[in-house]
Amino acid sequence: MFNPRPQDAPIDTQAQAQMKTKLDQLAKPVGGLGQLETLAIKLAGIEGTADLQTAKRCCLVFAGDHGVEKAGVSSTPRKVTWVQSLNTLAGHTTVASLAKANRCQVKVVDVGVDHDLSGTGVIDKKVNWGTQNMVTSPAMTRDEALQALQAGYDVALDSIREGNQLLLVGELGIGNTTPAAAMISVLLQIPAATVVGRGSVISDQRLIHKTRVVEDAIINWQPDPTDPIDVLSKVGGFEIGAKAGAMLCAAEHGVPLILDGFLSYAGAVLTEKLVPGTTQHLIASHFSRETGSKLALDWLGLTPLLDLQMAVGEGSGAVLLLGLIDSLQSVLANMNTLDDIAVQFKD
Amino acid sequence: MFNPRPQDAPIDTQAQAQMKTKLDQLAKPVGGLGQLETLAIKLAGIEGTADLQTAKRCCLVFAGDHGVEKAGVSSTPRKVTWVQSLNTLAGHTTVASLAKANRCQVKVVDVGVDHDLSGTGVIDKKVNWGTQNMVTSPAMTRDEALQALQAGYDVALDSIREGNQLLLVGELGIGNTTPAAAMISVLLQIPAATVVGRGSVISDQRLIHKTRVVEDAIINWQPDPTDPIDVLSKVGGFEIGAKAGAMLCAAEHGVPLILDGFLSYAGAVLTEKLVPGTTQHLIASHFSRETGSKLALDWLGLTPLLDLQMAVGEGSGAVLLLGLIDSLQSVLANMNTLDDIAVQFKD
Repeated sequence: MFNPRPQDAPIDTQAQAQMKTKLDQLAKPVGGLGQLETLAIKLAGIEGTADLQTAKRCCLVFAGDHGVEKAGVSSTPRKVTWVQSLNTLAGHTTVASLAKANRCQVKVVDVGVDHDLSGTGVIDKKVNWGTQNMVTSPAMTRDEALQALQAGYDVALDSIREGNQLLLVGELGIGNTTPAAAMISVLLQIPAATVVGRGSVISDQRLIHKTRVVEDAIINWQPDPTDPIDVLSKVGGFEIGAKAGAMLCAAEHGVPLILDGFLSYAGAVLTEKLVPGTTQHLIASHFSRETGSKLALDWLGLTPLLDLQMAVGEGSGAVLLLGLIDSLQSVLANMNTLDDIAVQFKD
Repeated sequence: MFNPRPQDAPIDTQAQAQMKTKLDQLAKPVGGLGQLETLAIKLAGIEGTADLQTAKRCCLVFAGDHGVEKAGVSSTPRKVTWVQSLNTLAGHTTVASLAKANRCQVKVVDVGVDHDLSGTGVIDKKVNWGTQNMVTSPAMTRDEALQALQAGYDVALDSIREGNQLLLVGELGIGNTTPAAAMISVLLQIPAATVVGRGSVISDQRLIHKTRVVEDAIINWQPDPTDPIDVLSKVGGFEIGAKAGAMLCAAEHGVPLILDGFLSYAGAVLTEKLVPGTTQHLIASHFSRETGSKLALDWLGLTPLLDLQMAVGEGSGAVLLLGLIDSLQSVLANMNTLDDIAVQFKD
């Protein structure tokens, strides 16, 4: 059974210092590349080298359904989860399209889809056929919560063994901003109303309903904020647990993991509560416009590089960051240093 | 002699509406791609088609020296302008490195470098060997200002005739944030102290000095805010004029032009003053951290997609936007529509 242990790879401060020196020696104003330089230094610390390895990367799209969808929190039908799982594999969703443009492999992992996806190319790690409706029952058993974490860990480990140098996470799961908001609300001890947002666009009325659903679930099952597994099992989702498992695996193996939006933040908060310090190994890509994003990111101490006001999910923002990473790598590979320029000055 | 005429290609509102429909029909939340959707609609309006053409693109790096550099406004020596012009051609500057990663051609155009660059591959449009020190003399003659505009216009026209579908602008010119700030101060009638910034990093003391230099130049030559050519000639720079010329050419030919940072904003303000409405054809890429950026962008009514706290110049931010444009194109080319999904639902 999954047992999260505080065994993250250390952050290599020497590699960070080497990267800082490397950047300062490039023929440009010191710090002139702004957040790209901050990113370079963070990546160097995680990978343990100033010679960044970023060419081979994989986005893990965890898919799961949510019992709470039956409580009317979303305007999108549950079936979309499995349909879009297959469309992602076929290359026709937002994340798949962006991955094509940014040279990124995509794996779709079934951790709880309410549909038989065997034989489709979707990786089968199904914990159950969707969670329970968290208003009328805990979302999952404690055992299932641990299985979800293990599933994410295992898929991440396989991907690292295949040589991936960066991992990205995304998700498919109609209704999943509801458990994400509930988990953040409980784990960070902030009122549901300041975390619950509109997900894939819902009406004012439905937003009020969604907030009450989260409040009711929390009141009914009293998840223990000091026990992250309890929170995941009572008001969480399979794909959120799986993401947290992937984050723990990446951190353990010194592989940077790029977060996407709100669902990723929920997974990261869970991860940080499970193994404090893990966030040092996580990269924030974009600022999700979902309510509660700022609260979660501030608590994590993460600053995304992109803020395009996107609200698609799937891993779309994470994949967009790869373009900036490739640009950074080109700068590191091709730019003259101040020493090069000094030689030119002597000529 | 250069004569800017209000003959911009019209913005195609029908193509904009078609793009909006196209985006709304993709299988994602309406508006879910945020600023990428706003960009797509703007590009469609400029190009006059919802079938965006963005594959062939060229960054025009205009290089010029500044007499005001002798007034001690910069901590970097003048020689860097020509050295970096050659290094850009060789692929070793920030803009050249980023262009490599983002599949963008780079042209370096000498409009006023204080060095003989003939036979190097740099395009020769030299107006003069640097401007005059604007504190002790107008920066250039009115005739030279018109020549600078013409130079930019001509190079842009050549690039469009070569089939480029997007133009980007950048610049090399030690000391050039000083004329850029002076021009914005005069044209927008705002105090120099709220526009002058630290350029490539200068001390507090030098910043005060730089502000006084701008104030003195404006007091000495009293550029007429209602006569943009007068402003360019008295407190401007050759490469700023050339950028404005390129913008006018792009707008006239229905080719989107991507701005870089502070120097681009100065060129865009000049352009908008010369031919009101031209800004509709300009795309803001990133938010420059130079003081005065927000004032200029607000006046132009432009919102950059990126804010990475960069301060390199050269065209670096403009080139970074290409990655997002390529990602957008992949979304438009590969994503399923809601109709596709509806068919899947029937199965």
